[in-house]
Amino acid sequence: MTAPDPISLGKSVLAGDRRALARAITLVESARPDHRAAADRLLEYLLPEAGRSIRIGITGVPGVGKSTFIEAFGLHVIGRGHKVAVLAVDPSSRRSGGSILGDKTRMEDLSRCPDAFIRPSPAGETLGGVARRTREAMLVCEAAGFDVIIVETVGVGQSETAVADMTDLFLLLLLPGGGDELQGLKRGIVEMADLVLVNKDDGDLAAAAQRAASEYRAALHLLGAGSADWRVPVATCSAATGRGIGEAWDLVGKFRDVMEPSGGIATRRAEQARAWMWSEIREGLVMALKADPVLARRLPGLDSDVAAGRVTPAAAARDALEAFLTGRS
Amino acid sequence: MTAPDPISLGKSVLAGDRRALARAITLVESARPDHRAAADRLLEYLLPEAGRSIRIGITGVPGVGKSTFIEAFGLHVIGRGHKVAVLAVDPSSRRSGGSILGDKTRMEDLSRCPDAFIRPSPAGETLGGVARRTREAMLVCEAAGFDVIIVETVGVGQSETAVADMTDLFLLLLLPGGGDELQGLKRGIVEMADLVLVNKDDGDLAAAAQRAASEYRAALHLLGAGSADWRVPVATCSAATGRGIGEAWDLVGKFRDVMEPSGGIATRRAEQARAWMWSEIREGLVMALKADPVLARRLPGLDSDVAAGRVTPAAAARDALEAFLTGRS
Repeated sequence: MTAPDPISLGKSVLAGDRRALARAITLVESARPDHRAAADRLLEYLLPEAGRSIRIGITGVPGVGKSTFIEAFGLHVIGRGHKVAVLAVDPSSRRSGGSILGDKTRMEDLSRCPDAFIRPSPAGETLGGVARRTREAMLVCEAAGFDVIIVETVGVGQSETAVADMTDLFLLLLLPGGGDELQGLKRGIVEMADLVLVNKDDGDLAAAAQRAASEYRAALHLLGAGSADWRVPVATCSAATGRGIGEAWDLVGKFRDVMEPSGGIATRRAEQARAWMWSEIREGLVMALKADPVLARRLPGLDSDVAAGRVTPAAAARDALEAFLTGRS
Repeated sequence: MTAPDPISLGKSVLAGDRRALARAITLVESARPDHRAAADRLLEYLLPEAGRSIRIGITGVPGVGKSTFIEAFGLHVIGRGHKVAVLAVDPSSRRSGGSILGDKTRMEDLSRCPDAFIRPSPAGETLGGVARRTREAMLVCEAAGFDVIIVETVGVGQSETAVADMTDLFLLLLLPGGGDELQGLKRGIVEMADLVLVNKDDGDLAAAAQRAASEYRAALHLLGAGSADWRVPVATCSAATGRGIGEAWDLVGKFRDVMEPSGGIATRRAEQARAWMWSEIREGLVMALKADPVLARRLPGLDSDVAAGRVTPAAAARDALEAFLTGRS
């Protein structure tokens, strides 16, 4: 594909053209260097119109019912007059394949809704690359008028942090099961949540869900989760029956009511943007270093010497840095 | 000071000469470029003799009684035939000043003990610099025969992570007070602990300490803290009366009994060393980039454009990287 003209594409995005939105995201996700300049021009054009949304990150262990929840939640939010975009960060999507079909069939009713836009995780080998493209897709969706952005973690481990670092509110979905299910999540992730929902508050599990919620509430209070402005609420819901879904959206509204006037969201976004810039700079520098022919030969040896304790990490780092930086004129 | 001969200094360190130990650490902590080569030579010489210790990181909110605990714990451990070194990571020590005197008077009995070595936090402006020097001081202490290394966090915020990243076992000291006290700690830090002790299990607070311990135990279990091999124990102690101090040391022994045969400690150390090398490389590259005259002029503008949402972080990062990397021949 040749890069489309970014300005006319941008105008169509702003006009609400869904095909243009999809093409714009494809452009932003493109790994081809000749697309990058057009993508940058497009983002620059759209940026003044981006940002007017609430960005909600959602994570939870496999089996918690994330897709069912996002579908029920998204439909509720649309019913309240909003436009909802669902994005995902899944560094494994290339390997598992077929995630476009997967996402669409997972959320059938939502995907048919004109006020919803569902975009699977961009393919990519590194979490950094996937996260970067999801962040930029988020800006495009905002410019297209989507005022509720849901970013879902699909992979496990690091992707939770990446999603928390690009959203205003981080929502953790839990099962009524308790402690053992959390072993699969990154350590410390529970304490990063802004809102916790125990799903499957229905049928035989209703009592367990209520009990789990009150236990999590006590635990999070004990661990000092949240901030002086915002005590992390723990509620229950049933994505299957719709119970508690409206209340979950009300809690998001309460979060905005607290965090927007206090400047909490604006501060978080400014910090996220700065941290993102520096993380891109660091990763770009490390890639350049690894691509240096001298370093490419030397790094594997340094790495194993350091891991085996034969060389101090600081000495190995100085060695690598000197070899790289003396290459500069 | 001119740099001492690193090999003869190293020999004296290995022979157990305390003045040599102090001088060796001073050399390793020196920020003077002409000391760096001698420090590297010294570390290279000592490295084969380092590593034979248990490295214990200790954190807790101000007022929890860290110094009193470390003194009681250190004296107990020495009584069991060990040699104990106490180091600290406190990025604020330069500003507050006088931390040498502070540390020594805080732990008077321990500091008089021939089998103890107490070293205050190196002065330094950045956490990274302070942490690097503490890591290297730890290696020197190990080579000098100290087989229990305690690394204390003094500052708040990031220093907890730095200490967790250089130790085998991360011990969190808590007060009987509960949730609110934890607001001062970095989010997620409770879930990083390998061992939790509720201090002040004495006098009027004894009942509250026991209750707090059982609440923390339930909360950590619920949050899935620890691993399949190691469920994080929560115990109580009184640094003032000595109650529970022996049991705390026994828990450290249990941790070793589980984590040494399983290779858990060796794996953690290898990962820490690798991560440390890469973090030094990244920071060194960023320092070089910031020192570039073109970038030094351009970065403040990029930073504020990114924070204000006028430029995407990725575009700003590419801009900075291009300016820097094209400077390479």
